[in-house]
Amino acid sequence: MKKRNEAIVKIACCQMEPIVGEKERNIRRSSEMIEEAAKEGANLIVLPELCNSGYVFDTRREAFDLSESVPEGETCQEWMKLASKFDIHIAAGINERAEDLLYNSSVIIGPKGHVGTFRKVHLWNEENLFFEPGNLGFPVFKTPIGRISSHICYDSWFPESYRLATLQGADIVCVCTNWVPIPGQDKTREAMANILVMGAAHVNSVFIAAADRVGTERGQPFIGQSLIANYTGWPIGGPASKDKEEIIYADANLADARRKRNWNEYNQPLRDRRKDVYGEMLGSEMNVGWY
Amino acid sequence: MKKRNEAIVKIACCQMEPIVGEKERNIRRSSEMIEEAAKEGANLIVLPELCNSGYVFDTRREAFDLSESVPEGETCQEWMKLASKFDIHIAAGINERAEDLLYNSSVIIGPKGHVGTFRKVHLWNEENLFFEPGNLGFPVFKTPIGRISSHICYDSWFPESYRLATLQGADIVCVCTNWVPIPGQDKTREAMANILVMGAAHVNSVFIAAADRVGTERGQPFIGQSLIANYTGWPIGGPASKDKEEIIYADANLADARRKRNWNEYNQPLRDRRKDVYGEMLGSEMNVGWY
Repeated sequence: MKKRNEAIVKIACCQMEPIVGEKERNIRRSSEMIEEAAKEGANLIVLPELCNSGYVFDTRREAFDLSESVPEGETCQEWMKLASKFDIHIAAGINERAEDLLYNSSVIIGPKGHVGTFRKVHLWNEENLFFEPGNLGFPVFKTPIGRISSHICYDSWFPESYRLATLQGADIVCVCTNWVPIPGQDKTREAMANILVMGAAHVNSVFIAAADRVGTERGQPFIGQSLIANYTGWPIGGPASKDKEEIIYADANLADARRKRNWNEYNQPLRDRRKDVYGEMLGSEMNVGWY
Repeated sequence: MKKRNEAIVKIACCQMEPIVGEKERNIRRSSEMIEEAAKEGANLIVLPELCNSGYVFDTRREAFDLSESVPEGETCQEWMKLASKFDIHIAAGINERAEDLLYNSSVIIGPKGHVGTFRKVHLWNEENLFFEPGNLGFPVFKTPIGRISSHICYDSWFPESYRLATLQGADIVCVCTNWVPIPGQDKTREAMANILVMGAAHVNSVFIAAADRVGTERGQPFIGQSLIANYTGWPIGGPASKDKEEIIYADANLADARRKRNWNEYNQPLRDRRKDVYGEMLGSEMNVGWY
């Protein structure tokens, strides 16, 4: 029997190990993982931050050499082919060159091609030497499988990022990330990054799919532990391992993000915001409503 | 040898079981717990939401009968005596009557008397039948032991609450709470409320001390698990049990909230906010800076 109000998406987060400088190899590896996930039935596939270029650049010259325009560049073109072939959506981190400037971006690609681009709003550490701060806000893309937003890594440290995406109607936030170890992390527990994902999913009643990378690059380790959180905040996929390439999956009924926000007769967490106390969020004028 | 930059506070969260309607008994019980904590050396003592009245009111009449004006009422007067006697600060939830209206409030009391009041900004469920929404914003009180802010329960579901307190210079947020069970809670894990506390402490680099209640009142259970989180987000006290009255303690060097916010050469989480993207927070014009 067919279930009513079904909006089931099979999400895959590809926990990959890009190698800095080896762009052609990285594109190939990302394609292999996308193909594997698609063959498992995934139709929304998330990849890590800067997964085509690697992360730790030595020089601006190197960062520029590993960049490309979106969606004309070779990486996007390859991902577009796969999205069309398998009838899937992809959210993946890419080193984007726009005119003479670089952005740490993620692209949303669907069966018909490039859907949209997000440019990392909050730059972390030496990214400030190579990239410009994102200038596209937190766009939410309306697609046949649901409303998709994307963040990159440090953006998750700002509750504002999730709030703004959700206020604009996002059903799911795809986080393309290169999480690094945090001083003070209790190694017996889940990563603080996972705690932030769970909390944000819960308070916004939104799905979050975070694809992290693994490996160590020029001395910089990454922590894996990719995670897919339900609209209640609880993990439905992962956390993945700390150090291995792997793909985690979850079936998500994205409709739940919209229909289960009435927590009782009085409370809906997005409507309960006290704008009189802390103000409207700039950008939320693009609010499409939560329904 | 005396350590430089010492701002050690011994925090106590009193996980108490108030009984609705038995105000005199509740005041006595709160006083016993405050006295016990003070004798253990605590100098910042946090108590649950509405700990003098209980939580589940049957009628407005009952809610009004259990309220009092602040700080003239009997509860505050008793707490002021204790604060003076033991040279301590107290943050505690109280059923406040102001003129003809009720607020779900917390009072900050110091050795010299009443320091200030917070009124719950985000009302939960049937509280909306009895209380007015808080109209005092998220004040931060400057005291000899540090800058103290207070939230109540559902306020923690709004990252805006912690952000606004921290932008105004809070070193610690004392959360007076009556956490209720959340549908979907994975019982093998920490409470989602604890996850929210940890995440908020981490992204704002602020201490958080949450005192919850225990017991079941007119069919409404409460979940305990009081928690004290470090400015890194990790617990330094608790979580307490789910169902027993007890006091948890932690020594906190509140100076760390101010001096450890530079995460690297480029990033400080409060300064990195992209106000051009999501706007200024109303109320942050009271910003005292983070130092």
